Amino acid sequence: MIRLECDYAEGAHPRVLRRLTDTNFDQTVGYGEDTFCDKARAQVRALCGGGEDLSVHFLVGGTQVNTTVIAAALRPHQGVIAAHTGHINVHETGAIESTGHKVLPIPSEDGKLTAEAILALWRAHWTDATHEHMVQPAMVYLSQPTENGTLYSLEELDAIWQVCQSKGLTLYIDGARLGYGLMSKACDMTLPDLAIRCDAFTIGGTKQGLLFGEALVIRNRALNRDFRYLIKQRGGLLAKGRLLGVQFSAILEEELYFTLSRQADEFAMKIRRAFEAKGCPMLYDSYTNQQYPILPDKLLHELEREFAFAFWCKTDETHTAVRICTSWATTQRAVDTLLRRLKQFA
Amino acid sequence: MIRLECDYAEGAHPRVLRRLTDTNFDQTVGYGEDTFCDKARAQVRALCGGGEDLSVHFLVGGTQVNTTVIAAALRPHQGVIAAHTGHINVHETGAIESTGHKVLPIPSEDGKLTAEAILALWRAHWTDATHEHMVQPAMVYLSQPTENGTLYSLEELDAIWQVCQSKGLTLYIDGARLGYGLMSKACDMTLPDLAIRCDAFTIGGTKQGLLFGEALVIRNRALNRDFRYLIKQRGGLLAKGRLLGVQFSAILEEELYFTLSRQADEFAMKIRRAFEAKGCPMLYDSYTNQQYPILPDKLLHELEREFAFAFWCKTDETHTAVRICTSWATTQRAVDTLLRRLKQFA
Amino acid sequence: MIRLECDYAEGAHPRVLRRLTDTNFDQTVGYGEDTFCDKARAQVRALCGGGEDLSVHFLVGGTQVNTTVIAAALRPHQGVIAAHTGHINVHETGAIESTGHKVLPIPSEDGKLTAEAILALWRAHWTDATHEHMVQPAMVYLSQPTENGTLYSLEELDAIWQVCQSKGLTLYIDGARLGYGLMSKACDMTLPDLAIRCDAFTIGGTKQGLLFGEALVIRNRALNRDFRYLIKQRGGLLAKGRLLGVQFSAILEEELYFTLSRQADEFAMKIRRAFEAKGCPMLYDSYTNQQYPILPDKLLHELEREFAFAFWCKTDETHTAVRICTSWATTQRAVDTLLRRLKQFA
Amino acid sequence: MIRLECDYAEGAHPRVLRRLTDTNFDQTVGYGEDTFCDKARAQVRALCGGGEDLSVHFLVGGTQVNTTVIAAALRPHQGVIAAHTGHINVHETGAIESTGHKVLPIPSEDGKLTAEAILALWRAHWTDATHEHMVQPAMVYLSQPTENGTLYSLEELDAIWQVCQSKGLTLYIDGARLGYGLMSKACDMTLPDLAIRCDAFTIGGTKQGLLFGEALVIRNRALNRDFRYLIKQRGGLLAKGRLLGVQFSAILEEELYFTLSRQADEFAMKIRRAFEAKGCPMLYDSYTNQQYPILPDKLLHELEREFAFAFWCKTDETHTAVRICTSWATTQRAVDTLLRRLKQFA
Repeated sequence: MIRLECDYAEGAHPRVLRRLTDTNFDQTVGYGEDTFCDKARAQVRALCGGGEDLSVHFLVGGTQVNTTVIAAALRPHQGVIAAHTGHINVHETGAIESTGHKVLPIPSEDGKLTAEAILALWRAHWTDATHEHMVQPAMVYLSQPTENGTLYSLEELDAIWQVCQSKGLTLYIDGARLGYGLMSKACDMTLPDLAIRCDAFTIGGTKQGLLFGEALVIRNRALNRDFRYLIKQRGGLLAKGRLLGVQFSAILEEELYFTLSRQADEFAMKIRRAFEAKGCPMLYDSYTNQQYPILPDKLLHELEREFAFAFWCKTDETHTAVRICTSWATTQRAVDTLLRRLKQFA
Repeated sequence: MIRLECDYAEGAHPRVLRRLTDTNFDQTVGYGEDTFCDKARAQVRALCGGGEDLSVHFLVGGTQVNTTVIAAALRPHQGVIAAHTGHINVHETGAIESTGHKVLPIPSEDGKLTAEAILALWRAHWTDATHEHMVQPAMVYLSQPTENGTLYSLEELDAIWQVCQSKGLTLYIDGARLGYGLMSKACDMTLPDLAIRCDAFTIGGTKQGLLFGEALVIRNRALNRDFRYLIKQRGGLLAKGRLLGVQFSAILEEELYFTLSRQADEFAMKIRRAFEAKGCPMLYDSYTNQQYPILPDKLLHELEREFAFAFWCKTDETHTAVRICTSWATTQRAVDTLLRRLKQFA
Repeated sequence: MIRLECDYAEGAHPRVLRRLTDTNFDQTVGYGEDTFCDKARAQVRALCGGGEDLSVHFLVGGTQVNTTVIAAALRPHQGVIAAHTGHINVHETGAIESTGHKVLPIPSEDGKLTAEAILALWRAHWTDATHEHMVQPAMVYLSQPTENGTLYSLEELDAIWQVCQSKGLTLYIDGARLGYGLMSKACDMTLPDLAIRCDAFTIGGTKQGLLFGEALVIRNRALNRDFRYLIKQRGGLLAKGRLLGVQFSAILEEELYFTLSRQADEFAMKIRRAFEAKGCPMLYDSYTNQQYPILPDKLLHELEREFAFAFWCKTDETHTAVRICTSWATTQRAVDTLLRRLKQFA
Repeated sequence: MIRLECDYAEGAHPRVLRRLTDTNFDQTVGYGEDTFCDKARAQVRALCGGGEDLSVHFLVGGTQVNTTVIAAALRPHQGVIAAHTGHINVHETGAIESTGHKVLPIPSEDGKLTAEAILALWRAHWTDATHEHMVQPAMVYLSQPTENGTLYSLEELDAIWQVCQSKGLTLYIDGARLGYGLMSKACDMTLPDLAIRCDAFTIGGTKQGLLFGEALVIRNRALNRDFRYLIKQRGGLLAKGRLLGVQFSAILEEELYFTLSRQADEFAMKIRRAFEAKGCPMLYDSYTNQQYPILPDKLLHELEREFAFAFWCKTDETHTAVRICTSWATTQRAVDTLLRRLKQFA
């Protein structure tokens, strides 16, 4: 069985594992205050084009980091705007609500928010005579790329950032798959471009070649205040914090992070084109490592003998949309096999 | 200015005030364990057609009682289903989320939920392979009448109650305006009918002739366990709890509660018919004390010199929907004046 | 039975009830934005010696206002310092914790905090190498008078306020019985004295002649930001907010609030002296409306046939400390009867 | 510098790292539903002497697992009893409170709770007339060994378990250092002994040879219900859950976990005896991997040039108690060096 249903089916890139092994018996202080973490923080800052103005924290997982950032940013009566398909709205078992905050969903076809829709929600709140009876919008959450594989353009992000700044909304970008986003042929922004257009964002590790780990970058000084207390409270202050520093340091060296991402994107586009050649349309117009072909059920059943995809939705009685993910671990052989099978089947 | 924008613009029915005055210097124990509360509890039980199986608690306000019941019923990973227009979803400043729980909204045109929609949401949750990553639906919240003045029929409530029982969902009915609902000509259920078709419900006082107060009736024994601790924790255990007992006792005597409700409904229907005669359609098909006529803006501006309505929404460039409320305090004279003005204006 | 076990056994002062009756059919807007509340706010400000710099909110009950202020002031990782006997630490069913915050208790014999103890706790936190693993002290809660009837002197309060200001701790004073405190012969501070030595405080109504209600005065602008959202979220935004304005307005007129308090304190001191004359020592050295005599059990049983006291604790096998409260409603006759009985019994 | 200040200064036991490397490219499903986790669960059950009645979950860290179990077990008005020195009371930045629950501390000299003290607290709650105004004790948290290195005997645990069962208190044992506890010469219980005397407990991995990870064993069926939702909500459902299965499986094979623990305990006892021979008393009477010698400051300063200890407290003006930890990673050489230096210094 060749697993293509997600981008976290394997362990870590060999360089990452090797580095963990090489440093295994170095003794360090705990909780992320070691020299490995310091070095990784410097690497992250350099890649972001920033200096000491950027605070960098390493956490274990995505739900953890999203919850911690959002709880840190909001006062009790405030909520966070997200696409209704956003990860925090549908796939974190109410983790945001568990910290007392409402997610304010905006309907979205492609998983993206727009500056206009954010502004409209903000205005609707403040022009309502009963606004004190409603959750106050105070933050915007978006993913780059989105859960649907779609991408914000620099212009779109810029417009959102303008709205956020003018209306006092904290902008947080979930970059669980940031590498696959930035390396996409369709992406017109760099990491430094993104870094100056939000209050905080993450550089995902779990889906990008590490065993686990998300790097959180905070530009907003007020948001960063006492942030380590908040990480600890949410259970995210890893005792052996060095593990995160060692891993990020390894994957960011010589831009391995980006090389792996680019390769995964290229594999994904090959797969997309093969499905399109086969007459299968795409559910979302993705140019990143997640692809959503709509298959005749007959074809799907044949492929499923050999490949694992993620079921997404039925599009009609005889067709199904699936998610196919490539990743840093996807092999040329796996892609070739899939392409070959696609050609073979009627 | 004649205020018709809400049903809480005055104090309390004179009998209620008189009773508070008559009992003012009687000394009682605090926190609702006094004989006035005991008497009121017995009256509530009798009107509901129940006995000791019904637990009755008195709380000060609606948001308080909704929050307390919902927090008492749910485990941390569970959420409560509501119409997207439901009070808990839009008008309680995230009080439910502040207790850690997500409101799971179902789109609704008329403010009502249906058994089918609830079942569909429940099924969608349990058939999703990633259901552990989603908030588990465990409770249903509805209002009788709804925030839009619409009513559930006995058949509709019955169907919802069947779904809730078969799927293990706690059913809670917000009866902030229950009297106006039950006394409506369009209502085909009695209080005892409702009382056996849910786990808990409220009999509103604040909008029904009391200074303040909601009576909470709980049939579900497990939900009632330690309930007074929960009231205290949420700030709802009134020191002079007797004030709630005295007031409910007074308004429930000789069915004053229902007489006042019926009268308010009749006034509301007169107002509705007058607007319809004037050619103004209704935004919602309400037969209770809240009416939502759509007026030409010109007419609205003329009326607003003398009457206060609640702005609801613009329906087009030249028309506006407003909410008009009658209540236990609405006078024949106020209604007549409105009807007269409607006839006068072009 | 003459009830002296608490100061909330009756309804409201007749003037308060009369005012509610007189204004009963005046129509007002809801949620505390009416002219009655405006007037009461102006009265509170004037009595406090302040102007528009003082924000005044009216809430229904004590647990509610404590929870709302504390949740408004703290970030998620922060806690509030209190005497271990403080109301928020022992008698609010974990309401503070239910908003996510730890109460940081300081042991106290007389119910009071000291500037030294607060400073020591603050220092212990910040000099601990693992302080990020501990709740950060960020607020101080105290009651004037305390739950034990004891009083802070102006000098003591001043010292605490100095520590709070120099260390960035928000100081909040729970004045549920503030009148009884300020009118005590042993009290050396005025309301304006207190008002400039904290970030926020309450002027209690429930135990001071109203049906219910606490006035919250906030001097700290940052704390007051969006405060009405927070009141709504915690279930404290009374629909008929005017009821609070009408009541406070009535009781504050012609300083009735203070006249009633002074009388209750005098009654309490008479009772104290009578017990002392009888050879009963006091558990706490209180000069306010709460007295804690230690009685031989035999005497207690005799008195309990006619009087209700609150059990406090056993002090040894044959003696019991009780709480005796006077209030705005205590009659000369009740006090005289108690004094007479005390003389009669062996 | 030889670090002995904690038991998480290194990575993982070589066998664990090797196993991660060997399985690195095996593709698995995510979130702990893979075959590696299944195997590790079976190993845990076997070591505990249990079968399918024991549910086993793997989480990343200690604060995370404590928070998740406690939030899962309690209703909103309930709290958890702990020694005042308990980890959840002092070293988790209020994580328990952040889920809405109060920690009910019991003063303890040696870090241990007693059945008598738990029973007394329970009785004090239920005999208090105002118990509904207080947090209801519903759970007991203890650590084996404690944060002070002390151990519960089988008889002591048995007595606590009896109280918990008879009073309806959930008993949860934090076993972050369980191996070091069970392998101590002073420990008279086995893992199966412990497993049947509580509702849930953890087998720590982070401090016991893994990179990270705690195994949670739940015997109480009700507590286990929907438990994976709760793990997800608290941010503890690791995407690559297999990493936990692989690691636990490796360390539990051939009882490596216990062999490593026994060795660390023996090293610790050697160090203890060396300090005692030197005339340094112990702050706590520990027979596990944590030792707390009280040193003359002069000796401490000399040792600190070469060794890192954890500062614990000043015991008088010229003496300091420190914590010295051995672990699975402590070398014979490090111990010998310390012993030699101790002999050398005056």
